[in-house]
Amino acid sequence: MKVSKLGEFRLIDLLAKMISDAKVDRLAPDRPLIGIGDDAAAWRPGGSIELATVDTMVQDIHFTLDTISWQELGWKSLAINLSDIAAMGGVPEYALVAMALPQDSAVSDVTALYEGMIKLARGSQTAIVGGNISRAPQVSVTITVIGRSLNGEILRRSAARPGDTIAVTGYPGSAAAGMEMLTQKLKLKPEAEKYLKSAFVHPVPRLAEGQFLVKCGLKTAIDISDGLLSDLRHICKESKMSARVFAERLPVHPLMKGSFGDKAPGLALSGGEDYELLFTGSSAAVNKAKSELKCPVTAIGEITAGEPGKIDLIDVQGKAVKTGKTGWQHF
Amino acid sequence: MKVSKLGEFRLIDLLAKMISDAKVDRLAPDRPLIGIGDDAAAWRPGGSIELATVDTMVQDIHFTLDTISWQELGWKSLAINLSDIAAMGGVPEYALVAMALPQDSAVSDVTALYEGMIKLARGSQTAIVGGNISRAPQVSVTITVIGRSLNGEILRRSAARPGDTIAVTGYPGSAAAGMEMLTQKLKLKPEAEKYLKSAFVHPVPRLAEGQFLVKCGLKTAIDISDGLLSDLRHICKESKMSARVFAERLPVHPLMKGSFGDKAPGLALSGGEDYELLFTGSSAAVNKAKSELKCPVTAIGEITAGEPGKIDLIDVQGKAVKTGKTGWQHF
Repeated sequence: MKVSKLGEFRLIDLLAKMISDAKVDRLAPDRPLIGIGDDAAAWRPGGSIELATVDTMVQDIHFTLDTISWQELGWKSLAINLSDIAAMGGVPEYALVAMALPQDSAVSDVTALYEGMIKLARGSQTAIVGGNISRAPQVSVTITVIGRSLNGEILRRSAARPGDTIAVTGYPGSAAAGMEMLTQKLKLKPEAEKYLKSAFVHPVPRLAEGQFLVKCGLKTAIDISDGLLSDLRHICKESKMSARVFAERLPVHPLMKGSFGDKAPGLALSGGEDYELLFTGSSAAVNKAKSELKCPVTAIGEITAGEPGKIDLIDVQGKAVKTGKTGWQHF
Repeated sequence: MKVSKLGEFRLIDLLAKMISDAKVDRLAPDRPLIGIGDDAAAWRPGGSIELATVDTMVQDIHFTLDTISWQELGWKSLAINLSDIAAMGGVPEYALVAMALPQDSAVSDVTALYEGMIKLARGSQTAIVGGNISRAPQVSVTITVIGRSLNGEILRRSAARPGDTIAVTGYPGSAAAGMEMLTQKLKLKPEAEKYLKSAFVHPVPRLAEGQFLVKCGLKTAIDISDGLLSDLRHICKESKMSARVFAERLPVHPLMKGSFGDKAPGLALSGGEDYELLFTGSSAAVNKAKSELKCPVTAIGEITAGEPGKIDLIDVQGKAVKTGKTGWQHF
């Protein structure tokens, strides 16, 4: 069978099972608290919890060099990894950078990439301690980030409970709208162009926000990389829960809605690469986050007891809507 | 300027300087003991020393699928990273695996890759705690390994001193000979074919050996990935030393010599991917390693005070020999 037929998530499940069956998923004598399948791996090496995550950006799969500058690529390559640490409510510590480059790459492009990465590393107090450079037919950047938990607490995908409010930071779908604008060369209002481009090429990992959610006593979060519904499904599957999402509560940015009209809700539900946080918890804790965080926080639905992974999208009339494409898979 | 003109090592130096100038090479409040430029990054987070390394294998650059099986590829992708931990005298703890695959990859090939990797993970007590899968036009495997020092001591590239004996484990050049045999489809004696193929596709990281060198009080080592002379030059540059290597002392495996004749010494000096350890220290400490390690240990030269990075290759008559290509660079 081809991996394209099996699909990315089932392939990951298969490989995770091989690793678990072989018992190489654990650090003797400490078994990881959470293995493959959350935003980052996490375990307790002695008191505090250590976090580790890795992510790759491949040219012409995740980006094209006509829609993102080298500096933006450096920023984004680190940002998508820091976002995984943010989704655990963690504090990043250090990064290792593995870069593949065609032979004819310009040195000035590579240093621009590092400028973007270094800017975010400084802003997020992440040390860049090592790396590797290989030759390859296309550019790719694979970054590993190691971090730690705040006060020994982390946000997981598996901690959602019936009655939890589902909330999201920022405006999901803006990154996907930005990508569509750039790849389709759409001409929009300058203000919309600026906002949507920035959402796509310059995501800001929600590190402070993730850490604040931990302080609010929240337990469950994921970052939106595959798309809101797809990532909510990850939470529901890991927590063995269902969910109800109210379509009219989705926070759609006015500049996105103004440019994309009827397509806006679909982008908000299924567009990937937002790197916003999707989290669940008591309405009191969600309200505390909403009132104290500087970024928008919107309650969009609730966790229910039911078939694990089942999500009902409810329209204004209170009816369940059929959802189409609900996220992005690699194969 | 193109990266191919600047060269891999000068590009790494340039990027390392950017990181250092921006002061993102340090973990507040702990500055890394060793930053970019050794086999692994190393720092002291509180007592013990933590080690981190990353390495990539790209299809048609580092391997072709007609010369290595998927299982061997899985083994080797992890082995080359464990070798970096071995070259620090460290103990591996856990690995993160980032894999890029074409859409039409067979699931059975991917699971075979994991089988090879898991076999080595078990044998080396390395946990596989996370990973990432991307689509890409060709297969690539990027593995990050985190480890720790043994008893707070590590082997560095920068600790060689005048008068140190230079020694090497195993038989350098065998992997390069194996690669040549496989790519050129050479027909050799079955015993030679088996040995040379194994040297290339199934390197065994010298973890126990590296740890034993630390116990012998040795301070300086590198693993041979670029080629013996090239890696010795890394030691000399980092230690600000010169070196003298005696050509007739090079350990050339009889099966390699029997098949490659006059080409054998060149392969031993410049062939990469051996993942043997090249180390320096007092003759007493080297002799202790030689008498107690199970693998061959051969003294091949000595460290001298002199122009940093200068290596004299001395022939049987005691004359300096001119060396040609002395290692492998990516660009």
